[in-house]
This record gives sequence, C-alpha cells and structure tokens, in this order.
Amino acid sequence: MTIQNAIADLSSLLGDRLQCSKAELEAHATSEAHFPTTPPDAVAYPLTTAEVSQILQICARHACPVVPWGTGTSLEGHALAIKGGISLDMGRMNKLLEVHAEDMDCVVQPGLTREELNQALRTTGLFFPVDPGANASLGGMAATRASGTTAVRYGTLRENVMALEVVLADGRIIRTGSRARKSSAGYDLTSLFVGSEGTLGVITELTLRLHGQPEAISSAVCAFNSIEDAVNTVITTIQMGIPMARIEFLDRASVRAVNLYSAAGLPEQPHLLVEFHGSPAGVAEQAERFGEIVADMGGSGFKWSSKTEERNALWDMRHKAYYACLALRKGSTALVTDVCVPISRLAEAVRETRADIDASPLPGPILGHVGDGNFHAILLVDPQKPDELAQARLLAGRMAERALRLGGTVTGEHGVGMGKLDYMRSEHGLAWDVMAAIKNTLDGGGILNPGKVVENEGDNRTVATK
Amino acid sequence: MTIQNAIADLSSLLGDRLQCSKAELEAHATSEAHFPTTPPDAVAYPLTTAEVSQILQICARHACPVVPWGTGTSLEGHALAIKGGISLDMGRMNKLLEVHAEDMDCVVQPGLTREELNQALRTTGLFFPVDPGANASLGGMAATRASGTTAVRYGTLRENVMALEVVLADGRIIRTGSRARKSSAGYDLTSLFVGSEGTLGVITELTLRLHGQPEAISSAVCAFNSIEDAVNTVITTIQMGIPMARIEFLDRASVRAVNLYSAAGLPEQPHLLVEFHGSPAGVAEQAERFGEIVADMGGSGFKWSSKTEERNALWDMRHKAYYACLALRKGSTALVTDVCVPISRLAEAVRETRADIDASPLPGPILGHVGDGNFHAILLVDPQKPDELAQARLLAGRMAERALRLGGTVTGEHGVGMGKLDYMRSEHGLAWDVMAAIKNTLDGGGILNPGKVVENEGDNRTVATK
Repeated sequence: MTIQNAIADLSSLLGDRLQCSKAELEAHATSEAHFPTTPPDAVAYPLTTAEVSQILQICARHACPVVPWGTGTSLEGHALAIKGGISLDMGRMNKLLEVHAEDMDCVVQPGLTREELNQALRTTGLFFPVDPGANASLGGMAATRASGTTAVRYGTLRENVMALEVVLADGRIIRTGSRARKSSAGYDLTSLFVGSEGTLGVITELTLRLHGQPEAISSAVCAFNSIEDAVNTVITTIQMGIPMARIEFLDRASVRAVNLYSAAGLPEQPHLLVEFHGSPAGVAEQAERFGEIVADMGGSGFKWSSKTEERNALWDMRHKAYYACLALRKGSTALVTDVCVPISRLAEAVRETRADIDASPLPGPILGHVGDGNFHAILLVDPQKPDELAQARLLAGRMAERALRLGGTVTGEHGVGMGKLDYMRSEHGLAWDVMAAIKNTLDGGGILNPGKVVENEGDNRTVATK
Repeated sequence: MTIQNAIADLSSLLGDRLQCSKAELEAHATSEAHFPTTPPDAVAYPLTTAEVSQILQICARHACPVVPWGTGTSLEGHALAIKGGISLDMGRMNKLLEVHAEDMDCVVQPGLTREELNQALRTTGLFFPVDPGANASLGGMAATRASGTTAVRYGTLRENVMALEVVLADGRIIRTGSRARKSSAGYDLTSLFVGSEGTLGVITELTLRLHGQPEAISSAVCAFNSIEDAVNTVITTIQMGIPMARIEFLDRASVRAVNLYSAAGLPEQPHLLVEFHGSPAGVAEQAERFGEIVADMGGSGFKWSSKTEERNALWDMRHKAYYACLALRKGSTALVTDVCVPISRLAEAVRETRADIDASPLPGPILGHVGDGNFHAILLVDPQKPDELAQARLLAGRMAERALRLGGTVTGEHGVGMGKLDYMRSEHGLAWDVMAAIKNTLDGGGILNPGKVVENEGDNRTVATK
C-alpha cells in the first residue's frame, strides 16, 4: 500500500503515458500563485474515461493520492499534490464531442480549454461566455466553479454546466444531469461536483450551456471621484434592469498599474469598465442609459463605443491587469486573494481593505467584478522575504473575515484549495462537517485531492507512504 | 421506539400545536393529484427553528417519520406521510424577515407563499419571479425545485435560492450559502437541499434572489398549423436571443378546454402564449421581432399587447388550464405528469405522446413551458375506475421512457415524490446510488420523508411501528 506500488501498476496500464521525469514533475509542481513548488510522484495522462476509472481503482487499492490537473492556472494551490501521489493530467482528453446548435449546448472532454471551445464554435453563432481570464480547461473551470468578468450576465460554471460524467474514487463511472434545460428528478449532483475541486470525483465529460453570440457589443469606461460613487453607479444600473455583460472596477492603484503597463492613459481615479450585449438598438440604449447614471453620480470621461478595436484594447488591458500589477514591483510574486460581499456592502469592504493594505508596507492594487460584489487584492511580495508573505497572509485573512462580517463569502471565484481552508469553519460552521461527511461517503479512503476543501491542519487521514 | 411515544413527547413540547384531530389529519392527507388519502399520525406546527430542531431530535430518538408540509400543492405525492408519523406543517413560520433592496434579495421563512411575498414587495420595485401556478409556500417550492411559466427567463428555484437554513435529521441547524451573489467556498450545499423534497433536512429559512419589476410587459398569442411549427418558432426565437419572459404551448385539446372553460375563443390549433419584459422600447422591439418569426413559420392570429387587462386575461386563462382540462370530463380526477427534453426533440416528444394518448381511451390535453422543453399531460381518469388510473400510469411511464430516450429527464419540475420513483434508476443509473449514499449519510435513521426520492418498493429501512 505505497505510492510506489501504485506507480508500478499505473506504469503497466499506461506505458509512457505515466511519466516520472524531472521536467514532467516540475511542470505539475507549480501554480500561478505564491505556493511553494510541490512536485507529484508521477504524472498520468489518461485518454479515456475507462482509463480514468482504472487509474482510480489502482490508486484506491494502494491509497495513492490522485490530484486532477487541467492547465494549472488556479490561484489557491488546488492542483498541487501536497500529499504526493499522482497528478492526473486531463490535457489529452480535450475533444469537443458534440455541438447541439438548436439546443444551445455542447458536450466536451475536460481538457478542452475555453478558448479552444470558442474557436471551434465561431461559425455556429454560439459561444461559451464564462471568462476567468486564463485560458483554463473546462474541466478545471467546472471543478473550481470558475466565473470572471461575464458572470454578472451569464452566470458562473454553476449556471452553465448542465450535466457531468464523473469517475468516483472507487472507479465507478456516473452521469449527473441531462441535456434537458431543467429537472427536478432528485438531488442536484451536478452542482455538488461543480466546485468540489477534484475532492469528490474526477470530471471526465461536461455538457455545457451555450449562448448566442451577441449581435452587437458596446463598451465604455468612466472615472469616479470615490469608490462609493462607482459602486452606487453599479447598484443603480442593476436596479434599473440594464443588463450589463461585464462591469469591472479598478481602484487608483490598479489604474496606475495599467497606465504604466498598457499605456492606458486613464486619470488616476477609481474606474468602471463596462460592456453591453444585445441588438444594435439595445446596446445603444443601454449605453446611453448607463451614461446618464454615471453623470448623476458625478462620473467623468464617459464614452461608449461599439468599435471592435477599442473594445479589444479595453479588455486586453483588463486581462493584463494582473501582470500590470506584478510589474509595479520588479521581481515580485503575488498573493492574489478574492472575496465576495452583498453589493450594498461592497464600497465599505473595498474601502476598509484599501486602508488596511495602505497601512502595510506592501503594494496591493484592488480590482474586481463589481456587479457580483466580487473583488481581488493583488498583494505584491518579495519572494526572498518570507515575512512579506506572512504579512500578505494576514491582510488576506482580514479580508476574508471582513467579507464574512459583511454577509459575504471568503472566496467568490478563486476557490478554497489550500489558501482558504483556514476560513471554512468560520464561513460554514456546522455545514463544513456536512461537507466532510459527504467527502467521506464518496471518498472514504481520502485519495482524491487530499488536503483540500474539507481537510485542515489537524487532518488525520492516512495516505500512503512513499 | 414508536410513533406514539414520539407523539407523547411532541405533545409535551408543543401543546396544542401538536394536533391529532380527524380534521387536521385529513387536511394533511391529500394533494392536488390522484394519490389516495394518506393521513399522518399527527400534525406539528412549529414556530421557530429551535423548535424544529427539538422536534427532529424527538423524532430521531423514536424513529418517527417527519414529512414537511407547505401548502400541499405538489403533484407527485411529496408531502404524504406514506409511512405514518408527523406532518410538519411550516405554515406558521411565514414571516418575511428581511428585504435588501440594494442587493435585490430577501430572507423569508418557509411558510410564506410566493403571492404573499410579491404582495409585500409591491412597493419596492422588486419581485420574486418564479411562478409554478399554485400559490405555493416558498419552502415547498425550494424543496421541490419548483419552476413554471417564467423559468425560461428567470430560472427555477435552483437559480433563485442563494442561501438556506436547514435542520438536519439529528437536530443540527446548519446554514448554507450567503447573501453574496456567488461563491466558490466549498461544496454547493444550497443546491443539494434545493430539490431534495424534505428527505435530507427541513428548510427553516431561505434567502431568495429578487428581480426588478419590469418597466414594461407585452404579451402575445398565436396559432400554428402543427406542433413542429410552434416548436421551431420557439427555437428560432431563443437562438436570436430574444429574451422571452414566458413562452407557453397549448395543444389542440388544451385549446378546446380553455375555450370551453374561459371562453377564450381561440381557433382549435396548437398555440403559443408569450410574454416579454423590458423597457417600453425593448418589449415593442421584441414583440415585433417575434411576430416576424411567427409569420415565417406560417403562424396566424399574431397580435401583441401591452395592456394590463388583456395580459391578465391571457395568464388567468393559462393558470386555469388545469381546471379547464378537468372540466372536459365531469367528475374526473387527473394524473398530471411532466417531462423535459432538449428542445430539438420537443416536437417529436409531444407528437409521440399525443399519438400515444389518442390511442388510449383517456382524454389527455398536453401543454407546457416550451422554452425549457418541459411539457405536461393531464390524463383524465374516472376515480371510480381503477383500470383507468392504471392505464394513465402506463401512459405516464411511456412518457418518462420517451423523455429519457430523447436525452431528457423524467420530470422537469413536478419532482419525484412517489410518482416518479420507478424511473429514477433508469434516469440516473449508478448516480442514484450516490443519492442514496448521501441520504444515508445525512439521515441514517431514514426519518425524513421516507419512501421518497431515493427509496423504492424494495426499501428495507426500519421505521417505527405504531
């Protein structure tokens, strides 16, 4: 019952699709965030669901941890094999299996990325709207309940996954949901696996909801004197029922960063970046009504455009904001953290967080998906100075506690992984025990992504020794 | 360990809020559908969450079944105490606790009905859009994952419940979710309890998403030569991104029924009834574009209106369609069944179902929420003739099998209750075992609404003797 025995059996099963080279292990040892390099013991590349099932049966027999891997772009260390074992790289199961244009859905393998899917859908008039920034795999996006800039209009992966095929820890293959738009036939297992971060099963197939490519798109930028004015603009816009496709907030520090990095040329004030999707007349009307609200709130510099180039430049700037922030401090790495609060408490949450970061020696721009009440702090630390990371952790911890105090959640979209485990008890109370009970029911041996979501420091599950 | 011992303890706890009178038992013995009268052994009326917790602790101790009760309007026998025990009537926990207008959410107790909620919200500019027809309790709607005419635009209870307070079988009180618009902090327990039909816990508080009352509403009616033309109109409308708030289908038999009952004066052809919500310019544009599609599909009689009286008459007629169908056959009762399929298969599903019913001696109008692929058959049976009910069951069974064959689900919105238990294995395969395992984890004693969702004929759980 050791990881090495599992590797021997997996090697017989997979041949050269079971890799133990230094390069392979290192490629599955890091994430885009600040966590220490954590190589797995081996990397497996399954090609079929049946093979995933066999892999899990072998790993269950040897109590060998299995950590599913998509593109490694998650931000809380989700895909790191912190208890050793196998990194299960789904990258070769990356086919677009079916497109049902009339039903506006498609069936994909988990390794397909969202950009690959949208590229393939280009001529169908349909698209998959959820956009977390990174070109993540769709399996990874489902596993982490990803969202991003467009969730305010189209929802998160929770709203856009219709059905799943999942391999359980014991190798059983189940299907949840169907291609019907709705169902009340029993427990919503699809929603249970979406966001379970690989701890309850391995997603091997997804049925995704698609949306019509908007006939027209307009976008706009505007500056405000205060965070409150920007947030109140968003609240009024939502209450008036103006359907925004994206509405992003940048604080002064973020604006400084994108000015330096992307030569954005924006005044150093809090900004909103918005996008509208609809008919040509519809987006014009929406942009104009939004402009009136901006004027009422004392906003300035409002202009809207339906020109593709201007729009692309805007969202390119936004998508590079993370790298723009990193460039504020040469050689830095970032502790990126997110929280989500009811929108009525958002200004308060951002203002207090801003003051807390400003009182620390660390630079930390704030930006976010303000229509959902979701915002991020990018805390820049010198990787050579462990005390800075410790300080960033304290700031992130206070952000999480603040979010809970204001009726929100410790993570709106980044997930739990390792980074938010310490706040799960505070957020969920006894409900965290229910999560642990479900985990124990579906993965009694604790082989699926151990140490994440439901398990904390005091964890005493047994996993195999090497 | 008997139900009588539980009743004695509950009586001490609740005084005259524990009722065993014949009238009380009979009031909790029936549903709106065809199931036989099934009185519980007693009816409990809790006033607080703490009291619900105490009730469940007593019932757990005595292995006494507990069946939550809302308004008794479900259609698959969900709330019938088929193994005896306590009907837990949530009707006195019916307060609107909080309205957060800026966040567009509210917190309610489970006994509040949707009409009471909307009445209370009238002056806020907000409303709760999910409309299953009946004036159901919001707790019951969450427990059955209700939807109805507006789900095509606003989603079902799955999309509109943000957070829950739930009492578990052992009396533990948990909270799931928060008032944040999204979260990726662990397993989605809210979605697990929504649609669990009282088998996993008792819902004692709900946080609901609200929507802005539409500035303008327009509605329209139109007739088609065939089911296909009507369905293709819906598919094209959805693909063009025209946001319908309601889109209802009535087949010829349903039109005949509403003509007789509501003097609707419609031609006896398949019909669509639609509604648009938006700005005045928006709904006019949407209605006109929809009218063009109708014309392309050979539809006739298209006219749209934004007059309140005309609209109210239309939806009044639609909401009374069930009674209109019952009136087609004097003294009849109905086996009402629903399925949901991918919309590309909807015409086929309706046509085959129509032919199957026509080949039987039973009248059975078909109508439904066609934008979701969800439709109902109202099979009219003489309650004095058991063979007719048996025949209706066979028709409903073939409808369920047909839905599965076409990639759909055996129930889009009515739920499992007792009526759809026999199809759960066909729909879910091994995933039904996962549901049973979760049930067993949360309610090992099997006291919560036994005999529903996860348990079939062969069930061998022990419940107390009387």
